[in-house]
Amino acid sequence: MTGTLAIAGIGPGDEALVTPEVSAALAAATDILGYAPYVARVPAREGLVLHPSDNRMELARAGEALRLASEGRHVVVVSSGDPGVFAMASAVFEAIEGSPQWQELPIRVLPGVTAMLAAAACAGAPLGHDFCAINLSDNLKPWLAIEKRLRLAAEADFAIALYNPRSASRPEGFARALEILREAGCDERIVIFARAISTPEERIKTVMLREARPEMADMRTLVIIGNSATRRVGRWVYAPRDVR
Amino acid sequence: MTGTLAIAGIGPGDEALVTPEVSAALAAATDILGYAPYVARVPAREGLVLHPSDNRMELARAGEALRLASEGRHVVVVSSGDPGVFAMASAVFEAIEGSPQWQELPIRVLPGVTAMLAAAACAGAPLGHDFCAINLSDNLKPWLAIEKRLRLAAEADFAIALYNPRSASRPEGFARALEILREAGCDERIVIFARAISTPEERIKTVMLREARPEMADMRTLVIIGNSATRRVGRWVYAPRDVR
Repeated sequence: MTGTLAIAGIGPGDEALVTPEVSAALAAATDILGYAPYVARVPAREGLVLHPSDNRMELARAGEALRLASEGRHVVVVSSGDPGVFAMASAVFEAIEGSPQWQELPIRVLPGVTAMLAAAACAGAPLGHDFCAINLSDNLKPWLAIEKRLRLAAEADFAIALYNPRSASRPEGFARALEILREAGCDERIVIFARAISTPEERIKTVMLREARPEMADMRTLVIIGNSATRRVGRWVYAPRDVR
Repeated sequence: MTGTLAIAGIGPGDEALVTPEVSAALAAATDILGYAPYVARVPAREGLVLHPSDNRMELARAGEALRLASEGRHVVVVSSGDPGVFAMASAVFEAIEGSPQWQELPIRVLPGVTAMLAAAACAGAPLGHDFCAINLSDNLKPWLAIEKRLRLAAEADFAIALYNPRSASRPEGFARALEILREAGCDERIVIFARAISTPEERIKTVMLREARPEMADMRTLVIIGNSATRRVGRWVYAPRDVR
């Protein structure tokens, strides 16, 4: 019996943003693994085993998913948004690197609508010109690498999407990120705070960077900082295509 | 009669990557506008008017869509991938800026799976760490801005997704981009050439940057350059989450 493993992106929250490819994988699965709030989005049915786990358990979860697939189960690991953007796909390949017997398993990565795309759509088109995405969590990388990237991103005049800007265990990083961007001359850039986009708690707030305060973000917020040409038109924010 | 306008991302090609939100908008539309190959993906039906147009007609197309919506039509402008990433959403807001009477129209941007996410999923997880997206077309921005961004992106050690790397009218830019990345010390980085992902012509090729040649890309190719830690495991390429 050959098992399978799919690492699937279930989008930012709204079921209307889940691709048919992912819905089909969920419908064919025997086992669903993931961070508990994401597993909770998969409807229970007979024969489907749900394996919710805690945050920061990514590598253990990946190993468990591979083990189940190697035993013939049809396993789906769920990530919110897209599984390849600061999510479970890298953890699965890391687990495979440590256990080469799993390299030949039938594995698929199923893309999804990542948070910055949903946030951008809600605000207008702030990612319509060149941009970058930075994970502000320093759980797995040195904080100085984040500082360096922020400075270079400002110098490159990228729009900047900040994932995981702020959590209870990391209250200081986002405040420091705002300082760095101020030092880099970004005071007059537009900042979008997009919280829980496409869920009932959705809230979007747009300010100038000089007005941005750390407490405007929490762990459910995606922050987009416009480039130097990004501007408002009516209730929308967009990056012009044409930059001279 | 109130019209509506949706700017919708129809994903990279496979219908299984079109979100239900976008499918619903297409099913309710009276008029579809877009670049002809994308409009051709929408099935004809009675009462639906298709308005295919040429490439580089973005601003005229956006104005026409707004005019139709203001006359009470239910208009969908289609982009491949996501409409907010180097696509039609910015053009629509640009058109609104020039014609403020359209600011109050009911407009929605419907996100989709953009090419770099589909390409990354196909290759493994090369966007699992911080990354940037650069449009290599200099139709609307100075080439020197692109060169500067490439240098800063290499210095920041971002993975780099290159959209529109090469076309018949712009054969030189991608060759120059590869030179710049070589000068920046990226010879040993992994490069993924992802062509027509999720279509019957899908083809994926992975080489080291020192082996990359300009003719490996064409106008249907999305190029991803790994960061300095990106590596292979079996048939996959991924960016480790943990970088020290």
